[in-house]
Amino acid sequence: MQLTNDTFLRALAREETGHTPVWLMRQAGRYLPEYNSTRKKAGSFLALAKNPAYATEVTLQPLERFPLDAAILFSDILTVPDAMGLGLYFAEGEGPRFERPLRDEAAIRALQVPDPGGELRYVTDAVREIRKALAGRVPLIGFSGSPYTLACYMVEGGGSDDYRTLKSMLYGRPDLLHHILDVNARAVTAYLNAQIEAGAQAVMIFDTWGGNLTSAGYEEFSLAYSRKVIAGLTKAHEGRRVPSILFTKGGGQWLEAMAATGCDALGIDWSTNLQAARARVGSQVALQGNLDPAVLFAPPERVRSEARRVLDAFGTGPGHVFNLGHGISQFTPPENVAALVDEVHTYSIKLRTTGAR
Amino acid sequence: MQLTNDTFLRALAREETGHTPVWLMRQAGRYLPEYNSTRKKAGSFLALAKNPAYATEVTLQPLERFPLDAAILFSDILTVPDAMGLGLYFAEGEGPRFERPLRDEAAIRALQVPDPGGELRYVTDAVREIRKALAGRVPLIGFSGSPYTLACYMVEGGGSDDYRTLKSMLYGRPDLLHHILDVNARAVTAYLNAQIEAGAQAVMIFDTWGGNLTSAGYEEFSLAYSRKVIAGLTKAHEGRRVPSILFTKGGGQWLEAMAATGCDALGIDWSTNLQAARARVGSQVALQGNLDPAVLFAPPERVRSEARRVLDAFGTGPGHVFNLGHGISQFTPPENVAALVDEVHTYSIKLRTTGAR
Repeated sequence: MQLTNDTFLRALAREETGHTPVWLMRQAGRYLPEYNSTRKKAGSFLALAKNPAYATEVTLQPLERFPLDAAILFSDILTVPDAMGLGLYFAEGEGPRFERPLRDEAAIRALQVPDPGGELRYVTDAVREIRKALAGRVPLIGFSGSPYTLACYMVEGGGSDDYRTLKSMLYGRPDLLHHILDVNARAVTAYLNAQIEAGAQAVMIFDTWGGNLTSAGYEEFSLAYSRKVIAGLTKAHEGRRVPSILFTKGGGQWLEAMAATGCDALGIDWSTNLQAARARVGSQVALQGNLDPAVLFAPPERVRSEARRVLDAFGTGPGHVFNLGHGISQFTPPENVAALVDEVHTYSIKLRTTGAR
Repeated sequence: MQLTNDTFLRALAREETGHTPVWLMRQAGRYLPEYNSTRKKAGSFLALAKNPAYATEVTLQPLERFPLDAAILFSDILTVPDAMGLGLYFAEGEGPRFERPLRDEAAIRALQVPDPGGELRYVTDAVREIRKALAGRVPLIGFSGSPYTLACYMVEGGGSDDYRTLKSMLYGRPDLLHHILDVNARAVTAYLNAQIEAGAQAVMIFDTWGGNLTSAGYEEFSLAYSRKVIAGLTKAHEGRRVPSILFTKGGGQWLEAMAATGCDALGIDWSTNLQAARARVGSQVALQGNLDPAVLFAPPERVRSEARRVLDAFGTGPGHVFNLGHGISQFTPPENVAALVDEVHTYSIKLRTTGAR
């Protein structure tokens, strides 16, 4: 099927585009009243994520409000360990937790790669249904947590300030952590390929916790396994390249190594200056980012001026996908998102015609 | 008074030393049973911090156990805003909080620099008493939170995942935040100078939250004010230079700018490779760091090998103070600290004689 708007995919391929495409991490989410209605109907976050019809409904909601250049599958980053039997749940007002975190060697050795056509079928069903509903309007992004980020949650049992349990294993029993990471890498590869097979036109790997490592640890425990995933990804589908985006929050010091994994683009958090990032790796990969999500708490004029700052930092030339540096906050006023998307489109067209920078 | 062991001060001055000096952020703390006893006696953390006799007792406790090369004043980073009248308290099992966070313009405009000889007298009294108790054994480090980190807590009212209130002010009313930061910079300068006057032989500025900013924001809201503090510090006392150490957690991308503030040393968190940091700024400043505190959860042999890794990364040559990349965890087994300090001393002497690297 022909895409009406393929700006996002062309920007990832570092081709010239008429404007800078924009989408927002967690764009289908709690800052939208219509999302909260659907979630209420579904009964819980997990019931929402596991029902393809609801997942389709919320995936499309932000596109109805804002002229975004991509849709992203509504799901959770922890679906894979959930399918491994760890029992994902959400305690009210808290982040994700597992009923059965990985705490002993026997459980770790018993870990299996889940069949994406089995327990995870609801995800590929959602991808298919969303593609149908999108009808070629914009591309659909599939995603997964990185092997390391999944392991952080699997071992810790949930989020953490210091990842004490995970780090104790990392320094005390690295062989066990490597075993988990190896299973995770195979599971994530199969999972992302199933999403591509079902119709995801780009994939993103979220390494939310890679930034809690040392430089050497990042290479050994995070990047080595993301690299394996990227190497195993289906590279083309429906006659078109399926680009991959690698995002490590707090990974600003490691962009060169990330760019060398074979991914098509890097997600950049807001702590890194985009001009500097582009100088370092922008001839190898496209860059996606990197507005501080907290800018969206400011008045619309400030949202617009900060958006221009990000666009100016990247400058003209191909290979920029505008995004936040992290997921959008539930406290964001939707009208500020409208101002942001409008400014990215309007100003990036202007930049191209005036040839500023 | 002559110092018995001035290795720490000589390393900060980038002079040759016989071994690499070591101390640990939060070395007087909850991982030590004797600390917990004193705290129990005092009744609460704040009662402990505000009583010079107790503060002296706990400051010296880690030195009784381990041959550390420096002592650090036992206090809290939020004493200054507490003295400004914000009402510091600690909710059980939570971090620090303020009873009266800065939420309206009138309160912000009314903010005053506290007299270090008034409300904060317990701090300088503690410094004097600790110096007496140390009797020249090792140097005493004074410290403060950075103007920005103090502002984060003052506006937010406590710790936060996203610093939403602070960031809303930063992007929506930057003039108000700049006013707070200006008062904080003057307050921190006076506070650190009072500590120096009372006997602190080095001072450290903890910018725990500077890493939540963009590159441009870090310069504007954090570094500009730390620079002011550093410029205003008493440079010598008791006939000796009083070096300053600037630490920004998550500041690995900004080391060049940090080194240009005029500080004597940079604190480096564990995400930055020390060899790379040294190549970037090690001819201008000394470096302090940077073992992942989670290494101390591993068996002693691993603690030792990871310590060697940090020492090897810095290599031989002057200007290294060994430390963790962040405060020591309350869950650390004290025997692992013993192994760490021993390994730093033993291996750094060996490195100097074999001339490795």
